[in-house]
Amino acid sequence: MFLQLLSVCYTYQTFANGDQTPIVKSTKKNIIMLVTDGTGPASINMARYFRQYRDDLDISDTLTLDKYFVGSSRTRSNSSLITDSAAGATVFSCGLKTYNGAIAVDPLQNPCGTILEALKLKGYKTGLVVTTSLTDATPAAFNSHADDRSMQSLIAGQQLGLDTSLGLVTDLMIGGGRCFYLPGSDPAGCRTDQLNMVERAKDLGFTVALDKNEFDQLDLGKNATLPLLSLLAYYNIPYDIDRDEAVYPSLEEEVITALTMLSEATKDSDEGFFLMIEGSRIDHAGHQNDPAAQVREVLAFDKAFKQVIDFVDSTDVETFVISTSDHETGGLTVGRQVTPTYPEYLWKPDALLNATKSGEYAIHKINTFKSELEKQGEDDLQIKGSKLYNFIKTDILEQDLGITDYTHEDIARIIADITKAHDYLNDMVSVRAEIGWSTHGHTAVDVNIYGHSNTERGLDLIHKYLRGNVENTEIGKFWEHITGSDLSHVTKLLEGTKHSISEEDISAENEQESVSHLLGMHPLPEQVIDLEDQA
Amino acid sequence: MFLQLLSVCYTYQTFANGDQTPIVKSTKKNIIMLVTDGTGPASINMARYFRQYRDDLDISDTLTLDKYFVGSSRTRSNSSLITDSAAGATVFSCGLKTYNGAIAVDPLQNPCGTILEALKLKGYKTGLVVTTSLTDATPAAFNSHADDRSMQSLIAGQQLGLDTSLGLVTDLMIGGGRCFYLPGSDPAGCRTDQLNMVERAKDLGFTVALDKNEFDQLDLGKNATLPLLSLLAYYNIPYDIDRDEAVYPSLEEEVITALTMLSEATKDSDEGFFLMIEGSRIDHAGHQNDPAAQVREVLAFDKAFKQVIDFVDSTDVETFVISTSDHETGGLTVGRQVTPTYPEYLWKPDALLNATKSGEYAIHKINTFKSELEKQGEDDLQIKGSKLYNFIKTDILEQDLGITDYTHEDIARIIADITKAHDYLNDMVSVRAEIGWSTHGHTAVDVNIYGHSNTERGLDLIHKYLRGNVENTEIGKFWEHITGSDLSHVTKLLEGTKHSISEEDISAENEQESVSHLLGMHPLPEQVIDLEDQA
Repeated sequence: MFLQLLSVCYTYQTFANGDQTPIVKSTKKNIIMLVTDGTGPASINMARYFRQYRDDLDISDTLTLDKYFVGSSRTRSNSSLITDSAAGATVFSCGLKTYNGAIAVDPLQNPCGTILEALKLKGYKTGLVVTTSLTDATPAAFNSHADDRSMQSLIAGQQLGLDTSLGLVTDLMIGGGRCFYLPGSDPAGCRTDQLNMVERAKDLGFTVALDKNEFDQLDLGKNATLPLLSLLAYYNIPYDIDRDEAVYPSLEEEVITALTMLSEATKDSDEGFFLMIEGSRIDHAGHQNDPAAQVREVLAFDKAFKQVIDFVDSTDVETFVISTSDHETGGLTVGRQVTPTYPEYLWKPDALLNATKSGEYAIHKINTFKSELEKQGEDDLQIKGSKLYNFIKTDILEQDLGITDYTHEDIARIIADITKAHDYLNDMVSVRAEIGWSTHGHTAVDVNIYGHSNTERGLDLIHKYLRGNVENTEIGKFWEHITGSDLSHVTKLLEGTKHSISEEDISAENEQESVSHLLGMHPLPEQVIDLEDQA
Repeated sequence: MFLQLLSVCYTYQTFANGDQTPIVKSTKKNIIMLVTDGTGPASINMARYFRQYRDDLDISDTLTLDKYFVGSSRTRSNSSLITDSAAGATVFSCGLKTYNGAIAVDPLQNPCGTILEALKLKGYKTGLVVTTSLTDATPAAFNSHADDRSMQSLIAGQQLGLDTSLGLVTDLMIGGGRCFYLPGSDPAGCRTDQLNMVERAKDLGFTVALDKNEFDQLDLGKNATLPLLSLLAYYNIPYDIDRDEAVYPSLEEEVITALTMLSEATKDSDEGFFLMIEGSRIDHAGHQNDPAAQVREVLAFDKAFKQVIDFVDSTDVETFVISTSDHETGGLTVGRQVTPTYPEYLWKPDALLNATKSGEYAIHKINTFKSELEKQGEDDLQIKGSKLYNFIKTDILEQDLGITDYTHEDIARIIADITKAHDYLNDMVSVRAEIGWSTHGHTAVDVNIYGHSNTERGLDLIHKYLRGNVENTEIGKFWEHITGSDLSHVTKLLEGTKHSISEEDISAENEQESVSHLLGMHPLPEQVIDLEDQA
């Protein structure tokens, strides 16, 4: 009722404002925004050529993404030449540049109206699909407001309508991050308070799916109704290279589910839906400098993107698709000098094909095995020929990473400092593939924009506004313009929305998060829980 | 007379071939192809933000190039996932993929007709403007044919009509590489034979300008007539960051000269001109991992590109401009982790502004100073406080590279191994700027395509054929199609053209070149001669 009232006010004010005349006259529309987090041009490139090699395809064979290339986007934030994912996502949701760490708040820390909120108020159905936590920066910037991305308990609350003047604005959420929805006292919870957001969702009438079994009962969306909350992992859904299909759905399955449910729910409505889909963990593979994991993440995203394209080309509703990245992660280069002498001009996709597990998976496996040995009182861990030594040699290097030309020194170094072994393993794969990385953080390179529509007018608008090299703000503004939305009006409606937490809670979140908000990922111990789910 | 006859045959056969119907009906056209050698998306990016910082510009300020972004190109060659400049240029000139090292010959080493040759045969005037040797891979692939890029004496000969069945096809050449035009016995020559190509040019009626003084007499093309041969350096023209304006013209001045002469020469003709312009040494800065030199090279190119755009927008002749790269060099990333702890999200353009000379210039200066000291019998070169030590500290690090936070160990390492000091100095600048590199060779990342035309039809054709992500062959094919050319016919006319040299000459070229053909640049001793020209 409250929402309906707002919706009416909003529609009236928008259309009464001459400066805000929408470019597209109001007709039913679907808006699909895809974000390849941390994905620069080189990541697309590496995945394309990896796939050509793996599947023995012609050199003219490309990713589905490649066929929809529109332009490139400049990504610097308001506070730095290199953006983080929070400022990078706020640009897409609010259409403005802000400081690194900001979740849909402007540079002065005022909550800014997002396209998801604006469209919900207009009567659209709305959804988010991700492979990391739903409370992580990219999804959070569409349906919550926080001065810092680390405030994930606040964010989860807002995602279910708590602490926001707009109330509930999201009809569908599929991803990880279950722990931020469960009270701190729950063994599976990591909230800084004792609220249970899963219970709240049930009270609000949500269909709730907390594991693969419950997800499968949705029958890819054919056997469920909105609203939907599906929290499929404690934090991250495992990398596609590691993913056990019996335990976690693919991004493609999540996207089919979302498209099916959102289109069904809007089929008799005057308005369509807004859906944000994130290939979240391409970024994590960049942070970890793991090329074998990254190529599989990009290909998993590309499959999901293909589903979106197929949907667009089959629906009668005018639909706009934009896929882009917030920034590049890792300083990936497809070519690396691995000898002191002048390098040959080549790189080696076969080394990425040989690796059948991520470094994240491998290091978890080593740690688990070592713990078991320690429990059993083994103390010759560092000795050549020890159980741990042989395990790393056979199970990890040979079997998981497909490396047979390792040396005794490699294994000795892994054992000597397990805290550095994750980087060491990923570097072993990268060197063999002749793939370079310059950082565990982000870089400034322009990112690609891909676009599609099922109408001539839609294609013309995409090319008119996003073709060429554009500032990333143009993407947020594009959504506002083509939907005839007025984000500044939504910003006014957000007055009074809670966007920060107490000093005490900040300490608690910081303890919870440590450096994870900088990394754009959760610290390893938490990821491990997700790996254990499928073990 | 011979050329005229060929031209007639060619025109007849092309238009008689139904499969080769030109897309654009024959009207007068100018074709301008620009190549940013070794320039990936990150290089453009770094230069754009460096310029914003240096000139205190708004964050929305972009390069001229950025405003003409059309799409991106996939660059792999016929022989490798990573191309060299020879295969990379042959794709633009012949429209086909070939092996690394090939100069306008196909994978079977048959000379392939180039767009420059085809247009010359149709009656166009033709030109090449570069900042490296005119016999280097990129320019060579437009007007010569060689099984390997190292065959530069053969290439120089062909560029003046020797050893090719087509005879002279080029009306204007401005660049470096004087030595390959002069006999091996000449102190300034490096040919493997005793032919003097400068004298041959004079015999053919060329205006010849061999230094800045003679270049200035051309009055930017207003005081000269075609054909023109201007060889402004022994091999490379110095980097723009090092360039003494009294000794070398800028790329911008070279381009203005070419545009003025070519447009004047074709003003009363039924056909326009073909001009290839290369920002050659962006690639060299990539090979050397020198970010301070590279940003100035990109900006110098962008100024020249602006001249091209201004020309196009002012001429009545339908003109097509495409600017792209053959490949990326260096594995440049704009962001680099310089601490063991997690990096901040930033990079530091101020460190590039502080450096006012290239590493190439600095190492030449050190070597010269050291030689002088050795001549004077100084033998305390490595001692702290020695003349060499203080020279490196004050003249090189502080004055030329703008580095004040060096350590004693830095200077000691530079002195201890001068052969590695070039890399060391460039790394000192790169680390301070937080700029990453992964190789001294090339990488596989897609490169940008920029395009412009002064007609609606021209813009439509550019967008129709080159928008989005395309294989690099599409660029060569584009020139063929829009000019109604038939490169396969030119290929037939090339039968009998010499495209290889004797075993003996190969050894001589190899001795001359050492690894330079791999590096895409001349070995340091030769570059030094150009630096000495301006000393």
